[in-house]
Amino acid sequence: MIELLDKGEKVKAASRKLRLLSTDEKNEAILSISRELEAQKEEILQANSIDVENSRKKGMKESLVDRLALSEDRIARMIESCKNVVFLSDPVGEIENTWVQKDGLQISRVRVPIGAIGMIYESRPNVTVDASILSLKSGNSVLLKGGSDAINSNKAIVSAIKKALTSAGLPEGSVELVEDTSHQAVEEMLKMNQYLSLIIPRGGAGLIKFVVNNSTIPVIETGIGNCHIFVDYDADVDKAVMIVDNAKTQRPGTCNAVETLLVHRAIAAEFIPRVAEILTQKGVELRGCAESIRYWKMLPATEEDYATEFLDLVLAVKIVEDVEEAISHIEKYSSGHSEAILTNDYANSRRFLKAVDSAAVYVNASTRFTDGGEFGFGSEIGISTQKLHARGPFGLKELTSYKYTILGDNQVRK
Amino acid sequence: MIELLDKGEKVKAASRKLRLLSTDEKNEAILSISRELEAQKEEILQANSIDVENSRKKGMKESLVDRLALSEDRIARMIESCKNVVFLSDPVGEIENTWVQKDGLQISRVRVPIGAIGMIYESRPNVTVDASILSLKSGNSVLLKGGSDAINSNKAIVSAIKKALTSAGLPEGSVELVEDTSHQAVEEMLKMNQYLSLIIPRGGAGLIKFVVNNSTIPVIETGIGNCHIFVDYDADVDKAVMIVDNAKTQRPGTCNAVETLLVHRAIAAEFIPRVAEILTQKGVELRGCAESIRYWKMLPATEEDYATEFLDLVLAVKIVEDVEEAISHIEKYSSGHSEAILTNDYANSRRFLKAVDSAAVYVNASTRFTDGGEFGFGSEIGISTQKLHARGPFGLKELTSYKYTILGDNQVRK
Repeated sequence: MIELLDKGEKVKAASRKLRLLSTDEKNEAILSISRELEAQKEEILQANSIDVENSRKKGMKESLVDRLALSEDRIARMIESCKNVVFLSDPVGEIENTWVQKDGLQISRVRVPIGAIGMIYESRPNVTVDASILSLKSGNSVLLKGGSDAINSNKAIVSAIKKALTSAGLPEGSVELVEDTSHQAVEEMLKMNQYLSLIIPRGGAGLIKFVVNNSTIPVIETGIGNCHIFVDYDADVDKAVMIVDNAKTQRPGTCNAVETLLVHRAIAAEFIPRVAEILTQKGVELRGCAESIRYWKMLPATEEDYATEFLDLVLAVKIVEDVEEAISHIEKYSSGHSEAILTNDYANSRRFLKAVDSAAVYVNASTRFTDGGEFGFGSEIGISTQKLHARGPFGLKELTSYKYTILGDNQVRK
Repeated sequence: MIELLDKGEKVKAASRKLRLLSTDEKNEAILSISRELEAQKEEILQANSIDVENSRKKGMKESLVDRLALSEDRIARMIESCKNVVFLSDPVGEIENTWVQKDGLQISRVRVPIGAIGMIYESRPNVTVDASILSLKSGNSVLLKGGSDAINSNKAIVSAIKKALTSAGLPEGSVELVEDTSHQAVEEMLKMNQYLSLIIPRGGAGLIKFVVNNSTIPVIETGIGNCHIFVDYDADVDKAVMIVDNAKTQRPGTCNAVETLLVHRAIAAEFIPRVAEILTQKGVELRGCAESIRYWKMLPATEEDYATEFLDLVLAVKIVEDVEEAISHIEKYSSGHSEAILTNDYANSRRFLKAVDSAAVYVNASTRFTDGGEFGFGSEIGISTQKLHARGPFGLKELTSYKYTILGDNQVRK
């Protein structure tokens, strides 16, 4: 596909220049993007209204249309994001460590950009801006592949970005959008390891699985969150109700929302009716194990329910014998995102923290805190649920690699 | 393939137990391996002699037979490796950072094992021991897939390792060897992402390319080194000769040996005859650009020569205009392993360090120093030539990931 190869080559070529830019040059380019988004607001909104109309015609659910739709306010937030990224510190060039070996070699480990990044995502057009400015700030170029539903919005946004970059003197190819929205284009992009050094998929489980199974480029898996909360025998019931409610209902469509509630048998009779009452009031559908159904009228939970990230007002419930059974259940079903224990038992809290192998493991707090902003990292490009390179919320630093620079005095190896 | 799936499941199950072991338990198991290698020395040597005999019958080059052959001395060195790994500090459980957010959440970033690792390698049987003990020390299980030439040696070594692990109380499946040496077994192993979290290939460019193009599991590419030395206009000629000689001839079969020599035009007439004389004496075949052939009689270098990792007593030579042309040549041909500039020009040294995008970039030293031991990291499992997760020499720390543990006081997200 000529478009893809051409753009792949362009982003690779641009990455060689971007990695040498100063922080000021990169910040100036990002501010230029913010100004151009403001200047081209009308064009972007108009393009977006075509996407929204097309999607409604195709019968897209209103909750999804809402993710796609832009407004003056949402564009203002994109502009705000640009300003926030300018204020983040630039990881490139940071010297993480310097030491001198006995033979006098002075070795430093220095942060460098990764190169050209491929970003594959679904409907939300703000990802187009976020991915562009985070890539640029970390000295990387980016090849964007958004969803077909948002193609007009993305074209308008990228047109503004490219104009801004040209006026700021950045190389052509710093940000490129794949305009071919076919599935075949994704497949081909995943084989372009001569140009791209990293692929970040953002979207549903189907997209991520397809990318992992077909990419010859390293992938960072993001955002699949089948998260658990375990309520231990001696949890404070009032506070546990408040935390489970927050984790399920505050923003049910996010990856850090809870999907399965595990309840210690000794507290089930007291806790389940209390939490079920408030959740039911808020429209949550509960699906419980045979034993939990004794304490509240709910649908029976299937094996598949325990394996599902609902991203909706649905919660699976299971009664367990103890912390060990909770840990085993999590080991079996979790996607490795975020899990919490609510307890006052010190040994159980230590055991849970050590044994649970997820990106974020909590004692007595809502799983909703797994987020770059809440962790104090500033903007994030996603939440990694795998173990290589980046795990949990990842931002600018994880968009870089490192190299060793070695200053010698004519040493040779013996 | 039943063998592979069965062993994949076993290493995955073992990884869940290994990640919770204490440093003492892991060290005890590694010492137990060293004792068992000593006890089963005769069996290992006998099995190895079958491999050596078979390989000679198949007409294997003696230099490769030498990589395969074991001796009392080489087994003693394997035992020594075990003892060295016991003394390395255990990265697992290390708390890299702890901070408290404004809302009181106390967040720590803690090192954890990766899980089950797949190691795919070629002939040298000592890799079987190194990969096993480094994986164990970092809390990971390992599925080993060695070359068919070494299958009897590997079976004997893994039999000793498994006996040692059983006696030390480690789970079955901590170390497993794939006994099927077919190419199909490699292909199947690369799709087992339900069990394996990382694949490390060690071998030639063909193996590594195959693994990268076929794996659904994250891969760390290792050890392809098309390394360059650039001799600048004002280099100290005596010292530059010594460094190029060291980088080419000290161990020509290693990945950090130099493969292309770039020479500044202004120093070529003086430098090329000097270095060519000593290299030719040592049996190095030189292949030069049209201009360099004026200064010494050599074969003409082809485009392919500049792209080749010879791993042998062959060196490509090219005259360049200045440091910028050297950097461009490296950008085009390098595998991203190690490059050096030999210069007394401060600005050129800074420019080269910044612009060259390889794992290790040297000023005035031999490329042969790119090695875990020489960098002070202790044992290494390989030299990564890619940018994700690990770059350059990587050892125990890079065989781990991290997770966040969060201690709360019933916080919910607002």
